[in-house]
Amino acid sequence: MSKGITSRGENYSQWYTDIVKKAQMADNSAVRGCMVIKPYGFALWENMKAELDRMFKETGHVNAYFPLFVPKSLFEAEEKNAEGFAKECAVVTHYRLKNDPNQKGKLMVDPDAKLEEELVVRPTSEAIIWNTYRDWIQSHRDLPILINQWANVVRWEMRTRLFLRTAEFLWQEGHTAHSTEAEAIEEAQRMQEVYATFAEEFMAMPVVRGRKSDSERFAGAEDTYTIEALMQDGKALQAGTSHFLGQNFAKAFDVKFANTNNREEYVWATSWGVSTRLIGGLIMTHSDDEGLVLPPRLAPIQVVIIPIPKPNEVIDAAADKVIAELKAKGIRVKYDVDKKKRPGFKFAQYELQGVPIRLGIGKRDLENGEVELARRDTKEKQNVPVEGLADYIENLLETIQKDMFQRAIDFRTEKTTVVDDFDTFKDVIENKGGFVSAHWDGTEETEQKIKELTKATIRCIPNDAVMEEGKCVFSGAPSKCRVLFAKAY
Amino acid sequence: MSKGITSRGENYSQWYTDIVKKAQMADNSAVRGCMVIKPYGFALWENMKAELDRMFKETGHVNAYFPLFVPKSLFEAEEKNAEGFAKECAVVTHYRLKNDPNQKGKLMVDPDAKLEEELVVRPTSEAIIWNTYRDWIQSHRDLPILINQWANVVRWEMRTRLFLRTAEFLWQEGHTAHSTEAEAIEEAQRMQEVYATFAEEFMAMPVVRGRKSDSERFAGAEDTYTIEALMQDGKALQAGTSHFLGQNFAKAFDVKFANTNNREEYVWATSWGVSTRLIGGLIMTHSDDEGLVLPPRLAPIQVVIIPIPKPNEVIDAAADKVIAELKAKGIRVKYDVDKKKRPGFKFAQYELQGVPIRLGIGKRDLENGEVELARRDTKEKQNVPVEGLADYIENLLETIQKDMFQRAIDFRTEKTTVVDDFDTFKDVIENKGGFVSAHWDGTEETEQKIKELTKATIRCIPNDAVMEEGKCVFSGAPSKCRVLFAKAY
Repeated sequence: MSKGITSRGENYSQWYTDIVKKAQMADNSAVRGCMVIKPYGFALWENMKAELDRMFKETGHVNAYFPLFVPKSLFEAEEKNAEGFAKECAVVTHYRLKNDPNQKGKLMVDPDAKLEEELVVRPTSEAIIWNTYRDWIQSHRDLPILINQWANVVRWEMRTRLFLRTAEFLWQEGHTAHSTEAEAIEEAQRMQEVYATFAEEFMAMPVVRGRKSDSERFAGAEDTYTIEALMQDGKALQAGTSHFLGQNFAKAFDVKFANTNNREEYVWATSWGVSTRLIGGLIMTHSDDEGLVLPPRLAPIQVVIIPIPKPNEVIDAAADKVIAELKAKGIRVKYDVDKKKRPGFKFAQYELQGVPIRLGIGKRDLENGEVELARRDTKEKQNVPVEGLADYIENLLETIQKDMFQRAIDFRTEKTTVVDDFDTFKDVIENKGGFVSAHWDGTEETEQKIKELTKATIRCIPNDAVMEEGKCVFSGAPSKCRVLFAKAY
Repeated sequence: MSKGITSRGENYSQWYTDIVKKAQMADNSAVRGCMVIKPYGFALWENMKAELDRMFKETGHVNAYFPLFVPKSLFEAEEKNAEGFAKECAVVTHYRLKNDPNQKGKLMVDPDAKLEEELVVRPTSEAIIWNTYRDWIQSHRDLPILINQWANVVRWEMRTRLFLRTAEFLWQEGHTAHSTEAEAIEEAQRMQEVYATFAEEFMAMPVVRGRKSDSERFAGAEDTYTIEALMQDGKALQAGTSHFLGQNFAKAFDVKFANTNNREEYVWATSWGVSTRLIGGLIMTHSDDEGLVLPPRLAPIQVVIIPIPKPNEVIDAAADKVIAELKAKGIRVKYDVDKKKRPGFKFAQYELQGVPIRLGIGKRDLENGEVELARRDTKEKQNVPVEGLADYIENLLETIQKDMFQRAIDFRTEKTTVVDDFDTFKDVIENKGGFVSAHWDGTEETEQKIKELTKATIRCIPNDAVMEEGKCVFSGAPSKCRVLFAKAY
């Protein structure tokens, strides 16, 4: 098959879009900025969801579901949050269509069905949820509330890209309520760590754990904890955020509790979310000019078996045995028996779709007690014995997972530059790309000027930043630690 | 605890609402007609989803995700479907809010951000999906497409009831494409049977499998296959529907394929869905004046263990052993160690929440090597030996599941009346309730008159209806088989 993928060197952005479309992950739809997530892309999302959901439940959270719509009066209650999202809200104003008297067979909005109060399609659910929590919380005995929701949200973006930035996207949003500030901060940091663990152990995508600067913080938050990944083109991707919301939403929605001394206090809050954007990050961390490269732990198909040149009784029998052994180990395996496609076509297809291990089973190799095994990540091929194959594959999947992570770590290390003067800063951002670790004077003014001059933003103040005396790379003013700059998605 | 549940005899409708709210299943929200599904209700939905999803995948389906919004021009393309849903559509007309210049801190819809084309919030997704399938289908080799989507949909209902009828609800919608009429009909019938199996084997809710009359058919379908359940108040509930859509959507969206003779044909379609409405059906099939009664296979908590009167080392040790044994069998168990609540309070709470088996572990019983076991469905209590307890419980859960189903079957049998004259028909519908099996002349006119006079509708023409000569219960005109009438939710 001809893959028709633009190379990364030629046009990284087009390469990304080609991969998403040709690998059957997602496509544009008839609705501006909204995507269709195709079965293969959705199967990946299901695997990601399953692991995240397990991790949320293991840390004490339960799932619930809140309305899609937020009445305007609730939406505007927390002013900073409202201001942050007002410019990108889809708004429902009517609840009925009627026949258009001037155009047979056409419909029009029924002017008699105008809503008294407009409904915002949720861009995030703090408002509707905190309005609900008011009824659920009276006493410290009702706390903490540790709820997560899997949902679709809508943010009307002008420039969209499949998975990375779409008007509608799928995500999870955790919304927790606590009786103390310390407990809420601990929760927000715990979820940052859950996200980081998921990114690194399942997506094989290394992330920097850090805190956002004031200007990059979530609208309505006191502190935003982030995980930042580095893509192959040297741009950063904000992969997940966890917010300490202070008492801002409790105050906006009047959510109080009686503490152990029976005094009323406002409730402390967090919220945290990751979205289908992670799929974009996954693709841009690992994939190559031949197509997707998927980490084994999340790949919808971990092993594909291809009969060479086509299925027959001997090959089927050998394949069935391998399949049974792999399935017994919980390995996701597919046997492609399509007789209309030649092996070479199938090889290209599964390479494009990033299946970690490909087995070719042919008569001649079988006679030698062997099959051909190809690794997607390194493209290495070798003959391996049928005897003990399932154990070999089980180990190899883990090896691939680790190798992919290590390569991404190495890439990031190579693309992280410590810089102490602004000329070098500009040069690195412009030519080398990646993370720049530099001192910053802590002012929004400097941050803004650097952004104007270089398009780089402060991705985060890393959790592991060393406290040291330094001078701001731009202003020369005193600084207490280095922060990470990068151009970002 | 005081449960505060209205009895069924006093007010069935209020009883239902009390159960939903007091058992922490769901609640109303600040958005007209939209509900909040609370963690306990959502945990039940998650269990239902997991089983249905498994059944869909076992029958060859894959999941995908399509946009929430349907542009008006696509929505109106299939005329009958559009007409059927136009009156209950939430419509997005704007994509931005702005500060209200006349009210500080308030927002208003930005008139400059009016959409060129209005977007309908999906009430169902045939239109957006078939518009997409046009790009996916060229040849018979692209067929069948067997896709399911888990999503939220919005139908602007004027009179809403938690789970049973809400403006926004959660559901799954299958949308399949086929090269032949026979294959599409077979698919629609297969999914009806999947729904029936799920209802009976997991929900313990017996259903009648049948076909809808013309007037009750889905807007845009050629045939609607339905499963109909009978609630305790004698009213029927349409619990799931599967539609053979013919070529209606293929024609509306110009979806053709080249057949094996390389001739172009329109694609054949099905769609099928069940929703959070099933939860309402589950509640109204089994629950009693003390609260929920949940079938073991779906119950979020299958066994609750309560220390009597409170946890201590001996009781904890005994509980831990039982918990480990139950968990090893995959049984969902909770040990309630809350020291602030007395056993009696806990008993009432788990009774209200419908947990199938309650174990009370106390020092005295333990000394005799026993624990107290209570069944939620029959309220029977007995002392059972600790030795072999996990096996006993495993069997008992299956017994409870079967007993619940059998009781529901018996109730339905008792409430199904064969009727041959209209006076009896009216009397049964009015006083006894339940299903009335009667001959019908097949005309919409008769159906409509019966509805006007009795509020009963034709729930379905049962799949197992016996072909026999008869006279319509209303008009006396010839009839070929009996159909089922009932008042319905």
